[in-house]
Amino acid sequence: MSTNENQSYESAGVDIHTANETLKAYAELAKKTMNENVLADIGPFGSVFKLSNYKEPVLVSSTDGVGTKLLLAKSTDRLSMMGEDLVNHCVNDVMCAGATPLFFLDYIGAGPNLSQEDRIELVKGMTKACLENDVALVGGETADLPDLYLKNAFDIVGFMLGASEKNKIVDGSKISAGDILYAIPSKGLQTNGFSMIRKIWNLNGEIEHDSKILSQKIDGLDMNLGESLMQPHLSFKNVIDELIYRNHDGISGIAHITGGGIALNLERIIPAQVKAVVDLSRYEIPTIYKIIHDQSSLSDKEMFEIFNMGIGMILVINKESLPLFRGIIDNFIEIGFIEKNINKNDKVEVILEK
Amino acid sequence: MSTNENQSYESAGVDIHTANETLKAYAELAKKTMNENVLADIGPFGSVFKLSNYKEPVLVSSTDGVGTKLLLAKSTDRLSMMGEDLVNHCVNDVMCAGATPLFFLDYIGAGPNLSQEDRIELVKGMTKACLENDVALVGGETADLPDLYLKNAFDIVGFMLGASEKNKIVDGSKISAGDILYAIPSKGLQTNGFSMIRKIWNLNGEIEHDSKILSQKIDGLDMNLGESLMQPHLSFKNVIDELIYRNHDGISGIAHITGGGIALNLERIIPAQVKAVVDLSRYEIPTIYKIIHDQSSLSDKEMFEIFNMGIGMILVINKESLPLFRGIIDNFIEIGFIEKNINKNDKVEVILEK
Repeated sequence: MSTNENQSYESAGVDIHTANETLKAYAELAKKTMNENVLADIGPFGSVFKLSNYKEPVLVSSTDGVGTKLLLAKSTDRLSMMGEDLVNHCVNDVMCAGATPLFFLDYIGAGPNLSQEDRIELVKGMTKACLENDVALVGGETADLPDLYLKNAFDIVGFMLGASEKNKIVDGSKISAGDILYAIPSKGLQTNGFSMIRKIWNLNGEIEHDSKILSQKIDGLDMNLGESLMQPHLSFKNVIDELIYRNHDGISGIAHITGGGIALNLERIIPAQVKAVVDLSRYEIPTIYKIIHDQSSLSDKEMFEIFNMGIGMILVINKESLPLFRGIIDNFIEIGFIEKNINKNDKVEVILEK
Repeated sequence: MSTNENQSYESAGVDIHTANETLKAYAELAKKTMNENVLADIGPFGSVFKLSNYKEPVLVSSTDGVGTKLLLAKSTDRLSMMGEDLVNHCVNDVMCAGATPLFFLDYIGAGPNLSQEDRIELVKGMTKACLENDVALVGGETADLPDLYLKNAFDIVGFMLGASEKNKIVDGSKISAGDILYAIPSKGLQTNGFSMIRKIWNLNGEIEHDSKILSQKIDGLDMNLGESLMQPHLSFKNVIDELIYRNHDGISGIAHITGGGIALNLERIIPAQVKAVVDLSRYEIPTIYKIIHDQSSLSDKEMFEIFNMGIGMILVINKESLPLFRGIIDNFIEIGFIEKNINKNDKVEVILEK
């Protein structure tokens, strides 16, 4: 039987040999993130990581994507940042349990136009963020799926594994009346609300069309629209590590503000007997959200459900411990408090304006 | 500001409240897979799992998808099976290190037509396979990404975490001349080669069109085409566990036959000083591959690079241990052997026919 070029595997959209070249480039990048706990290079089937120095280890895991922010990445030349966002998102999720992120695996679902260079850009960003967070990039998978994705689309998914001593896990169970809520400001939208953003500004995934819209200057913003929307999803590992180091017992809960906004995410860590009162009038909402509000017909409530409104994470802090945390939490926003939930109302009460 | 229905978040393709209902259904399903090591229900940010009874624990992790097999799932009413395939694929990857799979996280990237029922079907399959493999489904993420995926497309990604004692890891390093290769038969194509399958039979993702093609009977197959192509990706955990239990040191290497076929996957575990000689004429290739071959213009070599050709996994077994494994390996196919690689040739020599 002869090979018919029209029916080779390449013509079906899968080029195993080119993919192997890219895999080698990934491995080169990932090598920089390796530490003495990684027992094998990226390669056969499973990645092997030695777990050391824990008496009663618990493993904390999280998986996440970065959503349709990806669809603006190519038009704004921010593929590498998407890789960073993915890692940082997962790092913050693991930090919510007060754990130490240890290693990361990535999945890239490649659409028809995701070039080998684009893939490597994505992994470069992941590598950068892994290094910054002291996390090993131990493995991953790139799947060529041209018939799943729209023309300029692709997806990236991350998996983070962290560990903690069992008695050091932060899970919200110790949150009690009198605790204070501190919000860590985000640098921007992080990775949520981009389906709405794309609707508001009629971004359709066509790179030329989108680039034109995103390069416009808007009154009140010191960057163009694309730069204002596409700020990085920061990792808050360093500040949380420092707080935990100063006084582990002072931190009773940590929430990462992702899809669903402040209320929905904070609610996830609040125990039954208490409620969180969040006073959103206590801080100045960044300009970009005001512009989104003006350009859309969303209500205030919807804005707070869809967007993080400038909040990266919320920490629940035991009042007596506040002095120990000075110097760090001074950069955060005191945004509310915990009280008894006498009437078994909603776990989070949000005050939009006074 | 009033809410304009045309610009609600639902109209942007994301319905947070319906998504929350589905999350509850996921949690109900996942609950069945929980064991005493899972310290929290599916929920806040990171899943917490207690690692018990290891002296020198190493963690083995794997991430994978099931590729474009997904595009035939809806037309053949096999969404649940896709969930099983995903878990089993990851289980087998972790088994390659001789480790015990412990917990699983899933990611669903939802295209425009993936209904809530469809999502629950996928997770039902994952739950079923997790239960069968004694793995806890500890968490996951469903992302609504209607503008990333083509009409009937979606993607699922799995992350499996396993563990082993450091001195019990199987990594191929002890493979030596004289070892015998045994192939565990697969039930079918597993999850590779479906881009080619779709090309050969002109499957385009339109459910009615594809269903018609896939329901045809083909001479030589006792099931219709769809059933023949869409056989489950089996887990080989039980047989590998039993072999390891009988004699851990008798198993020097384990390869999962996925994308790239027999040679590429086997190559990944072969150390530098030896080579594997695989004699593919030693077994009867299942009919479905002959039909694929006949319908395509692929060469024999290409067939073996694209498809698993009926092989699920390959075990490298120390010759002296063979008697201990009788009763199990009798159901496998003796497919070759390891010899010294004197001339530093390719690590895998494949004999197609004699």
